[in-house]
Order: sequence, then C-alpha cells, then structure tokens
Amino acid sequence: MVGLGVMGRNLMLNIADHGFSVIGLDLDPLKAAAVSVEATPGTTVQGVTDLQVFVQSLRSPRAIMLLVPAGKPVDAAIASLLPLLDAGDIVIDGGNSYFPDTDHRVAELEASGIHFFGMGISGGEQGARFGPSMMPGGNRAAYERLRPIFEAVAAKVAGEPCVEFLGNGSAGNYVKMVHNGIEYGVMQLIAEIYDLLKRGAGFTDTELQAIFQTWNNTELQSFLVEITSEILKHTDEHTGLPMVQVISDRARSKGTGKWTSQNAMDLQVPVPTIDMSVLMRDISKYKEERVEAAKLLPNGALTQVAEADRAALVQQARNAFYFAMMSAYAQGLAQLTVASETYNYELNLATVARIWRGGCIIRAACLTDIRAAFEKNPALRNILLDPAIGADLLVRQQDIRSVLKLAIDKGIAMPAFMASLAYFDAYRTETLPTNLIQAQRDYFGAHTYERVDREGIFHTQWS
Amino acid sequence: MVGLGVMGRNLMLNIADHGFSVIGLDLDPLKAAAVSVEATPGTTVQGVTDLQVFVQSLRSPRAIMLLVPAGKPVDAAIASLLPLLDAGDIVIDGGNSYFPDTDHRVAELEASGIHFFGMGISGGEQGARFGPSMMPGGNRAAYERLRPIFEAVAAKVAGEPCVEFLGNGSAGNYVKMVHNGIEYGVMQLIAEIYDLLKRGAGFTDTELQAIFQTWNNTELQSFLVEITSEILKHTDEHTGLPMVQVISDRARSKGTGKWTSQNAMDLQVPVPTIDMSVLMRDISKYKEERVEAAKLLPNGALTQVAEADRAALVQQARNAFYFAMMSAYAQGLAQLTVASETYNYELNLATVARIWRGGCIIRAACLTDIRAAFEKNPALRNILLDPAIGADLLVRQQDIRSVLKLAIDKGIAMPAFMASLAYFDAYRTETLPTNLIQAQRDYFGAHTYERVDREGIFHTQWS
Repeated sequence: MVGLGVMGRNLMLNIADHGFSVIGLDLDPLKAAAVSVEATPGTTVQGVTDLQVFVQSLRSPRAIMLLVPAGKPVDAAIASLLPLLDAGDIVIDGGNSYFPDTDHRVAELEASGIHFFGMGISGGEQGARFGPSMMPGGNRAAYERLRPIFEAVAAKVAGEPCVEFLGNGSAGNYVKMVHNGIEYGVMQLIAEIYDLLKRGAGFTDTELQAIFQTWNNTELQSFLVEITSEILKHTDEHTGLPMVQVISDRARSKGTGKWTSQNAMDLQVPVPTIDMSVLMRDISKYKEERVEAAKLLPNGALTQVAEADRAALVQQARNAFYFAMMSAYAQGLAQLTVASETYNYELNLATVARIWRGGCIIRAACLTDIRAAFEKNPALRNILLDPAIGADLLVRQQDIRSVLKLAIDKGIAMPAFMASLAYFDAYRTETLPTNLIQAQRDYFGAHTYERVDREGIFHTQWS
Repeated sequence: MVGLGVMGRNLMLNIADHGFSVIGLDLDPLKAAAVSVEATPGTTVQGVTDLQVFVQSLRSPRAIMLLVPAGKPVDAAIASLLPLLDAGDIVIDGGNSYFPDTDHRVAELEASGIHFFGMGISGGEQGARFGPSMMPGGNRAAYERLRPIFEAVAAKVAGEPCVEFLGNGSAGNYVKMVHNGIEYGVMQLIAEIYDLLKRGAGFTDTELQAIFQTWNNTELQSFLVEITSEILKHTDEHTGLPMVQVISDRARSKGTGKWTSQNAMDLQVPVPTIDMSVLMRDISKYKEERVEAAKLLPNGALTQVAEADRAALVQQARNAFYFAMMSAYAQGLAQLTVASETYNYELNLATVARIWRGGCIIRAACLTDIRAAFEKNPALRNILLDPAIGADLLVRQQDIRSVLKLAIDKGIAMPAFMASLAYFDAYRTETLPTNLIQAQRDYFGAHTYERVDREGIFHTQWS
C-alpha cells in the first residue's frame, strides 16, 4: 500500500484482518508508524518510510496499491516505483483518478509488462476499514490474481461481495466517477426536499430527523438517507442549536461530479440531475452576492404560512424523492451504457448495480430493482424502459408534480427535482420541439435539417 | 481572406462594398471564382487559389483573416502562411475557435512578431454580407490598424458599430463562445414555450406565428423571436403542412454551447439555462428510445382539453419568456465576469452588451437595458442585482411560476424555463440547504466544514 492517509491505512488494516500480510509505504513517519498502533493484534501489517525496503519486502510478482491524491501524486508514485518493478507486477490506483489519465498509464506501464489498473473505492473511512465497494477495471488476468483479497475485504450483501472486475482500460475509474455523479445528485435531492419541508412547510429539524429516519425503513432505504437522519440528531455543543444550523452553506466539491457532467456532454448523454447538483454547489459559493440578492429580490411567498396537509405532504415528498432519485440513477446508468460503447469498456450494468448495493456511498434498496431490470434485459438502454420501474414511476409522478408546484409557489429552488422530472417528461416524448431549433439553425446558419417523411439533408431559403 | 465558404465570401464582399481592396484564397477553384461573380460592380475584390500569389498581393504589414473551420484547419492555414509572413503582420481567426487554442496561437505567433487575434463573428450568412457583430480580442495596437475596416463593415445600431476591441488573449473567442451559449439558451426557451402553447394549450402553428410576430413588437423584440415568426409562416410545398411539422426533431450542435457549459463548470459559474439547452439537443437525438418510452410511459395529461384562459396564458407566456431570457443573459454575463478575472481579459460588459445589440444572433431589445445596467455600475456582478432589472423580474415572476405549473401538470418538459427560475430562486436565497451537503461530506469522508459563527475548518465525529 503506497499512501497511508486514513483511506490507505484503513484499507490496509482491513486486508490484514482477513489474514493477508500487508506492508505500507508513506514518507511521513507518523503515518507509517500509525499502522502498527491501529492494527488488530495478531495481524501481519507494518508501515515503512523507505521505498527500497518497501519494494524488497514484496513477494514477486508484486501487487502494489496506490492510495494517493489523484493527478500528479499518482504519476510521482509510479515514477518512483517503476525502476524497481519487474514485468508481471501489478500496480493498482485506488484513488479517484480522472479516467483518461488511467488510460495513459495503462498503456505506458503495459509497455514494461506491468499491469496497471484503476479501481474506484467507495465507502469513505468506515467503508475502507470494514468493507468498501470496489470498482476495478483494466487487465482481467491481473485482477484474477488479486480477486481473493478484494472479495475478502469488500462489503457483502446477501453473501455477495461488492467487488467485481468491471471492464477494460479505465472502466473502474469511469464507473466510480459516475457513482460520484449520482452521489452528487442524491445529496442535492435530499438537500432540496429538506429545504422545501423546512422553509416551505415549516417542519423543524427534529421533525425532519424523524421523517428521514422513517424513510430509511421504506423503499428509500439508503446510506445517504440514513446519515441524514443521523446528522439531524446532532446538537452543536457551543450553541445548543441543531448541528446543521451552524454549518456554513458554502458547499465544496472535489471534481468527480464535474467530470461526470462534462464527460456526459462530450458523450451527448443527458444527466440533468447531476448537472444541477454540481451547479448548486457552485452557486452556494456566491454567498456575498446571494445575501445582496436576498435583500433586493425578497421572497415574499415564504412569509405566508403553509396551509398544506402536513401528513399528505410528507407522503408526496417521499414519492417525489423516490421518483427523482430513480431519474438520477437512470441518467448515470445511461451514461455508463454510452461510455461502455464509446470506450470499449464492455460493462455489465447488472454487475455495476450489484456491487453498488453495499459498501459505497450510493448504496440503496432501489439498486436491487435496478439490478433485476438489467438481469432481465441486459440490453436495456435506460431503466425508465424497464416495465416494472416505469410502471412504478407512473404511479408516483403526480406526487413529484405536486411537490414541485409547491416549491414554485414558495420560491424555493429545487433544480435537481425539476431536472429529474424534466428528464422523465422529455425522455417519454416522441416529438420534442427541437424541430423548431433545427429550423432556426437552418434559417440563420444554413445548417440544414432532416425531414420526418424522407431521408436526406434539406435546406430552406427562409427569407 | 483565407477560406471562401459562404461566411468568408460574404464578409469579403461586405468589406469590398465599403471601398477596401480585398483578395481571397481558397484551394477550391469554384469558391475562388465565385467571388468575382458575386462582387458588387466597381468593387476591388478577387479570389485566388495560389498561396504565393495571395500573400504577394498583400500590402505590408499584411492583414490576413482566416475563416476556416475551427481546430486543425486553422492550424493548417497558419502553418502554410507562416513561412511567407513577416514581423508586424496580422493574422485574424474569424471562426469559432476553442479559446485555449487561440491562447496557444497568440503566444506562438507573437514569438515571430506576428499579431494573432481571435475574433468571433456572429450574424450568419446575411450578417457577414451586410453587417455582422464582431468580437475581437488579442493585440490592441494591431486591432487599431484594422479598426476602420471593421467599423465600416459591422452592423450599426443607432449609429454605433457592433464591433469593439474586447480584451486580451482569447477574449474575442471567449465572448463569442458565451454569446453562442446564450443563443442555445434562448433558442431552447422559444422551443419550450412554443411546445407548451401548442401541445399543452392547443394553439395552432398559425396562431403561434401571430403570437411570435406580436411579441417581436414588444420588449421581447429580438432576432430569434423574429425568425421564429418567419419560420412559422412557411408551408412545405410537398405536403402542404407547416414547414416546422416536417422538420425532424433531432437537433444538432457544433460544440460552442457545450464548451460554454463545460467551461462554466471549470470556473464554478452556474449557467443552468445553457446547460439544459445543450442537454435538450442531446436528448433529442435519442429518438428511438423516446418513441419506445412514449408507449411505455404515456402522457395522459395531454389527452385532457386545456381549460386555460387563452389570452391570459399568452400574456403569462410573454412575461415568463422575458423572465427566463433575462435569467439566461444573467448567467452568461456572470460567466464573462468570472472568465475575465480568471483569464485576465479585462472585459467591459457594457461594451459586450453594446456590440451584441445588432448584427448577431442574440441581438435583442433587452440588451439596451443590460448595457445601461453595466454603464451605471461597471462593477455589477450580476444583472439580477441591477435595481431596475431586478424590480422588473419581481413583477413578472408570478407568470413564469404559473406557466411552469401548467407545464408540470401537462407533463411537458420545460427544463430551460425551470433552470431559469431555479437560478433566480437560488441566487436570491441567503441560506441554501447546501449546509446539509457539507454535513454529509464530513460524515462519510471527513471533508470538514465551515461554521456560520466563527472562522476555521471543523470536523464532527458523527457516528
């Protein structure tokens, strides 16, 4: 293990707990020393600071995992290791590397006979320590050698480990990137429904805690709903206020959500819920402008007391959230379908859904239905086209419509919910008004158009 | 002029019409020959196919404009010209080049003493021939030498030419890119309101033609509204149907809208209306899936007859469209503000608004108000913070809310309208629910958070 930050250390301890001997390398002596302190008694695990010692301790063919920050640190780690490695060795990048970087590294190292693979790991600190979801891609034969280790340490759901070889090249990093894009989406959806119920309908943080806790025992069961209910239990010790109320609303991001959206645009795959989630973190940073705008453009609708039937609203919110969440999954999985074709990943989406069911941040009960949809029809282009999922969303659609109308009346921004519904409404529309856009493009730029009734490319002399 | 496609030829003829001598180069003899055929009698203009002849015909210091497709063709043209040029010559790229490419070319050519600048040109074929809007950036001294030509050929509004030196480096291409992003936004907004009135409320194409024509005599006056009303006048000669009805709804795009969205994400500037416009062109391409989805997920709401008060709905639609359009301009202009700071363009947004008022695709009456806002307050961060514009949008906001609620009930996708409203509602919110997102990030990834009541970086042991 190269890189003994919390994630690297925890994953190493997890591997050691399953009976494997592990050695870790970090230039920081404190991190290297922390390994033995934290190790479970009786396990074979140590941390060192010397590269030579580290490499010489490994059995050949070597298996080395990097858990260092994406970008230059990965290249630096590879460059320092490379002179000491031999053909047949395996190097695994367990970080959130940008997928084209992985493709370059695979090609570069394969020239020296070294098998490089990118493996997305999700689950945060706790996941790394006690069972993450892992998304490896690259050289299948190399993966097979390490399979017993990964299957031992991965999260398990109904006895199945949440790890599987996913595909060629950068498939592992790509799947993890989209995982994170969906994660952005679901987090924003939770924030929006929380905001509507709180500012729009007057629910307190205590009431909202109970709502999320209840939801976690329904079809909404998921890690993100669960931790939301946990977060809302916390009180700030300094002020006595609910913890969320003292946390600044400037949200940060580390890039994987943005990469998902930007690459989706390159692939011409619509992922509007993810786009809006990335964007709301951006808009949250404009705090000074928002404070000024709040004075100049006051939201009068919020001063009126909500007259909604509270129990009915909570039920609508539950269906609306489920609907919007499924739309976000639909978008991300459709992106994986197109990416798999574009980059020759050869992904199996039933497998992706299966290993996402446990260990990772977006683990959720709904992934069982999603997996079933892909197992029933491996060629499924979009989960909205699965008869069972589609029928379920048709039943719930009235509630997301009601919720959004309330948000619009209350002046509460719910762009991710809006995008989730608009995606559904656009996707199930046979004839979109984009014919008018083609006419406009032909009018001002002679960009030509296609016709509905015959093949060919046409141009009209409009003016 | 290098590249004698329709745009290059038309701009050349336009320059010649204003008393300047122009020579054009194209390897295609037909295009080179077309120049003299199309020239206004008495003007000094010719087309040639020989590079040597072309360069030798130019007075030193030379001024050469390229109007070739963006990307490799621009590099190829520069590479072939370079050996024949001298220090002090000017090379202008009039195409839609990706702005970082322009920055590289500026630096590369400046090393040989050649002034390169990127100049976005908008207005389509007719604009190029009779008066485009031109957005030059690069070397100011070089621009000054050519200013008389550009000011002569540019569109004029109230006597002012729609061209002005905009800023350093790739400023010209960047401003044109965002111009196109806004163009995508407004085109999508027109398509959505057309769709709602047509499918959602039963207006015919003939009625819609009259509505757009009327709107073009109001505060909605703009080139895109004008050509929409023109397009809706056209009948297909083969079928006798309105022309729009025979045009396929698979919309195409050439990349500038996507670049705007992707770069906005890099700059962390929210441009949701533009994002949704790029995305709806993408979703339009999924025709087979949409046809299948339309069967599986039928839109029952459309079978009910609309009961809306038609005159009232048209009035609401007019205000909603104005509101959404201003939101799109606000987003694009905010992107220019941040880009100017990031890339040191030194843009003056009053100037940008001024030269957009005529000649270009997004020319619109509202740009007069936008220009005034920036003249009044050159440090304005967002036009939503201009008191006059803000007050106007507060008055119109109820109508965009009503229109969107109708769209939601009717199951008609209006993601660009939704994004325009959500942008407004999020921007004028002092406290967004992104505090919950920060809590979640800290919960699962120890990503830390800021507090509202004290400086510093904090972490909570949540579980």
